[in-house]
Amino acid sequence: MAPQYAPSLRSRLAPMLLVLQIGFILIYAFYIEIESNVNVYGITFSNFYAEFQNVNVMVILGFGFLCTFLVRYGFSGSGFNLLVAVMATQWAIILNGIESWYYRGKIRIDLKSLVVAEMCAASALISIGAVLGKTNPVQLILIALLEVSGFVLNEWLLQTLLKVQPLNSIMLLHIFGAFFGLTMTWILFKKGAEQPFEKEKVDRKSGLFSILGTLFLWVFWPSFNSILVDNHTPGRRLGAVFSTYLALAVSAVTAAAVSSLSSPKGKLNPIHLQSCMLAGGVAVGVSMPAVHQPWEAMTIGFTAAVVSTIGFRYLKTHMLLAFQCHDTCAVLSTHGLPGLLGWLAHLLLQLKDYDDPTTAIRFAVFHICCLLITIALSLAIGIIAGLLLKWHFWRPPQDKKCFDDQAFWEFPHLAVQK
Amino acid sequence: MAPQYAPSLRSRLAPMLLVLQIGFILIYAFYIEIESNVNVYGITFSNFYAEFQNVNVMVILGFGFLCTFLVRYGFSGSGFNLLVAVMATQWAIILNGIESWYYRGKIRIDLKSLVVAEMCAASALISIGAVLGKTNPVQLILIALLEVSGFVLNEWLLQTLLKVQPLNSIMLLHIFGAFFGLTMTWILFKKGAEQPFEKEKVDRKSGLFSILGTLFLWVFWPSFNSILVDNHTPGRRLGAVFSTYLALAVSAVTAAAVSSLSSPKGKLNPIHLQSCMLAGGVAVGVSMPAVHQPWEAMTIGFTAAVVSTIGFRYLKTHMLLAFQCHDTCAVLSTHGLPGLLGWLAHLLLQLKDYDDPTTAIRFAVFHICCLLITIALSLAIGIIAGLLLKWHFWRPPQDKKCFDDQAFWEFPHLAVQK
Amino acid sequence: MAPQYAPSLRSRLAPMLLVLQIGFILIYAFYIEIESNVNVYGITFSNFYAEFQNVNVMVILGFGFLCTFLVRYGFSGSGFNLLVAVMATQWAIILNGIESWYYRGKIRIDLKSLVVAEMCAASALISIGAVLGKTNPVQLILIALLEVSGFVLNEWLLQTLLKVQPLNSIMLLHIFGAFFGLTMTWILFKKGAEQPFEKEKVDRKSGLFSILGTLFLWVFWPSFNSILVDNHTPGRRLGAVFSTYLALAVSAVTAAAVSSLSSPKGKLNPIHLQSCMLAGGVAVGVSMPAVHQPWEAMTIGFTAAVVSTIGFRYLKTHMLLAFQCHDTCAVLSTHGLPGLLGWLAHLLLQLKDYDDPTTAIRFAVFHICCLLITIALSLAIGIIAGLLLKWHFWRPPQDKKCFDDQAFWEFPHLAVQK
Repeated sequence: MAPQYAPSLRSRLAPMLLVLQIGFILIYAFYIEIESNVNVYGITFSNFYAEFQNVNVMVILGFGFLCTFLVRYGFSGSGFNLLVAVMATQWAIILNGIESWYYRGKIRIDLKSLVVAEMCAASALISIGAVLGKTNPVQLILIALLEVSGFVLNEWLLQTLLKVQPLNSIMLLHIFGAFFGLTMTWILFKKGAEQPFEKEKVDRKSGLFSILGTLFLWVFWPSFNSILVDNHTPGRRLGAVFSTYLALAVSAVTAAAVSSLSSPKGKLNPIHLQSCMLAGGVAVGVSMPAVHQPWEAMTIGFTAAVVSTIGFRYLKTHMLLAFQCHDTCAVLSTHGLPGLLGWLAHLLLQLKDYDDPTTAIRFAVFHICCLLITIALSLAIGIIAGLLLKWHFWRPPQDKKCFDDQAFWEFPHLAVQK
Repeated sequence: MAPQYAPSLRSRLAPMLLVLQIGFILIYAFYIEIESNVNVYGITFSNFYAEFQNVNVMVILGFGFLCTFLVRYGFSGSGFNLLVAVMATQWAIILNGIESWYYRGKIRIDLKSLVVAEMCAASALISIGAVLGKTNPVQLILIALLEVSGFVLNEWLLQTLLKVQPLNSIMLLHIFGAFFGLTMTWILFKKGAEQPFEKEKVDRKSGLFSILGTLFLWVFWPSFNSILVDNHTPGRRLGAVFSTYLALAVSAVTAAAVSSLSSPKGKLNPIHLQSCMLAGGVAVGVSMPAVHQPWEAMTIGFTAAVVSTIGFRYLKTHMLLAFQCHDTCAVLSTHGLPGLLGWLAHLLLQLKDYDDPTTAIRFAVFHICCLLITIALSLAIGIIAGLLLKWHFWRPPQDKKCFDDQAFWEFPHLAVQK
Repeated sequence: MAPQYAPSLRSRLAPMLLVLQIGFILIYAFYIEIESNVNVYGITFSNFYAEFQNVNVMVILGFGFLCTFLVRYGFSGSGFNLLVAVMATQWAIILNGIESWYYRGKIRIDLKSLVVAEMCAASALISIGAVLGKTNPVQLILIALLEVSGFVLNEWLLQTLLKVQPLNSIMLLHIFGAFFGLTMTWILFKKGAEQPFEKEKVDRKSGLFSILGTLFLWVFWPSFNSILVDNHTPGRRLGAVFSTYLALAVSAVTAAAVSSLSSPKGKLNPIHLQSCMLAGGVAVGVSMPAVHQPWEAMTIGFTAAVVSTIGFRYLKTHMLLAFQCHDTCAVLSTHGLPGLLGWLAHLLLQLKDYDDPTTAIRFAVFHICCLLITIALSLAIGIIAGLLLKWHFWRPPQDKKCFDDQAFWEFPHLAVQK
């Protein structure tokens, strides 16, 4: 039955990629120039470049190998991740520069623009985790472009309407990406998919590749949270690095403890551990502006890991059976819940600092509005994306061909498995 | 027979992890604060951070994947490594700050404290190499906490009694870790374990994961040896980087030559190569303060690789049969012997520089005392740790369940191996 | 039939490695010293070191794991890559310092020397890609030493005769390495080898290891192209980073599109994608001095990926059948063609900038001479190397033992594959 859909890539993927890529080149030719004054933000190139590379490793190697856990879907996991990441990054550079283009006619880019664009791409990669294996690369790229557009629009709304700091609005990427992905996978749900997919399996070696990706994310997450923190207040960046490191350390330990506690045989679950040990990084990233002491970061990391591991153990099946929402990489527990927790921690820590109840209430209203706008927008655009992708024109893979590299990749020299 | 021990993790691991972790959070809440004056050591944050990340990659990815060579023990190798590393790092930050807490009531931490703590954790990871696969994670974490305590005590003794420079005492981590691990595995030896374990095997792919880990260590070792070298003397840090790079290069080549020479069929042994090509980095790290010329580093690398490869080929079996000391990752040849060699090279190179025999003898006595204290302490605490771990309360895995992920991990979606 | 050649390593490899290594140590002892004045180039150690490590990761981990795609040749791919890289680097440091030795009697090395030496080693690693699997490590090391000597001679000729900038001559490494490798593999061709080798196969997991290597190269390529760009003109280095990043992004997308277009079933080929997504980095590296706008880099990346993917799809078989040239890693399409394209792009972009036809023609002649010298020298030394390696003294592996780790590695504890 497969051959019926196999040619989809030729008549859909190739033209789409070529048209988009040539379009991007034309836009870059007319509107983009490199900012030669490298000292605009008081950060010299050399100081910034090493951290940029850390973020780049996270986006390409970290997310890429995180998605190789499916035993027959390793090439797709890492390969489509790269395609999506580079398309989303190019698109995000353009979108982030629209305001500057409006006023000056040109978009000036520097290393910081690239970092911000890669973070927008990371937000798209998170959404894709929810539909991984059930979509083809054409759909993935469409999702990524829509998600990035939505995320940039959300940033712009927050900054324009509520005067939110750019750094704070970017860090909502976990919440935006997770809810966008969940909405989409809910809309794309096909009747009868409550049964587990035949090929949605891991094996020892694909599990190790996935651990490799997770550890790349774990190791470089402090750069992800600290790179955009401005360097004017001395120690602020060091604080961000420390908070993230400690939160990640605590959440690795806590995820192991909770995973073992919640297992009837007292065993650890490698997939829980992988996803949930990153929860601390997510939560601290979202609450970064209000975290000033190491113990605050550690407590946030602890709570995030508890919530995330319990969510993974009980919520994933529940979401599937009760809400018909099949979430391949469990983005709800990995990014959604810890992101919300981080938002809450930000609120509580900030309220603690205010003596004046009026200011406190004003801040709470402002902070709740931020969240509501973000979630509303992510749901709205997620619904649009989901409906668009339901269209049969995109030739989605059949259920039997889900989670299988063979639908998209040719292996002329593949050794016969013994 | 397995189910009898399977529940151990639930009633031992989870409570231990939670109690320790909450304890750490409380200690951090009351006594730890971040040093905001980032220029204390004349090193700015940006200059230091890239090298910190290199060390972090070594500890998490390097040691983690080095331990994945066992075919059925990959999840444990990399997962327990992470758990141990983060527990040991958090504990080492506290222990290293005790003096400052005593005088000032607070422990101030900066990026350098984190690097030093990760090096203490590295020393624990080395010891764990000797008992890997024969212990459960509860035991591993206890070992790590004891080892780190012993190592920090050793540092404090050397610095207080003998006025050893901090950098020099830290670099003894290879010697301390190796002898601690060997003592422990000797005490934990069970009668009848001369036969090779049924599951202590490698396959092609697990071997490649292990090579990946080794190469992470190999590539970033120059950072490990140079990061704590102070930057006041210009060129000192560059010298450390160069010495380490050249020593590693020479020991990779030499390990290949000796491995092929000592094999009856003239073949290379992948595991020899992996362990022994790091010997140069160990030896040069220990002798760093006295290495000033590239050729000195290269000669040390050459000798270290010869000693290490021959040690690996002949000593590992000998240790098992004659001394009943089963050394999973061969830490004796990888860290112990090259560490001793580095200590000797330091002595010889330093003696060469002294004209005055009195100073020379005084230095020799001082240098020998350093080694004796380190070895004595590592043996003593190794014996204590070994005896503590023999206690059946910790539910060690049975021989049949050694080197097997299945004792500790659950795989609900594991694909059937074909 | 294998045992007949199996002992070759013992009586050939070990003595050769030991003699060469001891020779290098002696040369370093007498002639090499570390440059302590670290500010010679206006670049401080800390600024330079992070980028050096990126290049180091590319050479050791990137090229090493790129070569693990062959299912039975993973240990050799990554292990021999390391051996060759460190031998070639040590040798290149000596060769690059000959001029300074001639005038001052000493060779002074700093971090920049090490980077340049690693780039020469990269050029040797590219050549080796063409003969990988069909040669033994003794031959590989000889090839590497000859290739590096030829490449350094080429650089010296270009700089002496034509006053080419050092950076521009180094970037010809892709062209030199590719044509050197092709000539050699053409000379080493054995009759009857038109049939595919029995063991020249990939499997899912070895493919993923290879993707890992490719992604290391992809992620850190901006450092490779920018590290030697001088920092005096502000923004020049940022420009190099941006150009490389964008070219790589565009070539990843384009390679996917062309691979899918040119496949009858519209599927992607993982090996195409891997090699061809690096084409943009190669081409932009060669044309770097003339690339000033992002869109120029993107167009170069686009063209390079088209040329490279089409070359891979149709040229590889053609080269084998028509020219009897078996190119294991397809270095022609990955480095050769994109390198030539980069050279052409450099010419065209530079000509566009000249108003005066005389200067333009002078530049064109100069630029063509550079290429002709490089190609002539690479062919000449490739022929010499090929003829030398044909000598049976080196005991090349038999056809049946090609692409097999078992000819060179011993596996005492290998698990039986189930």
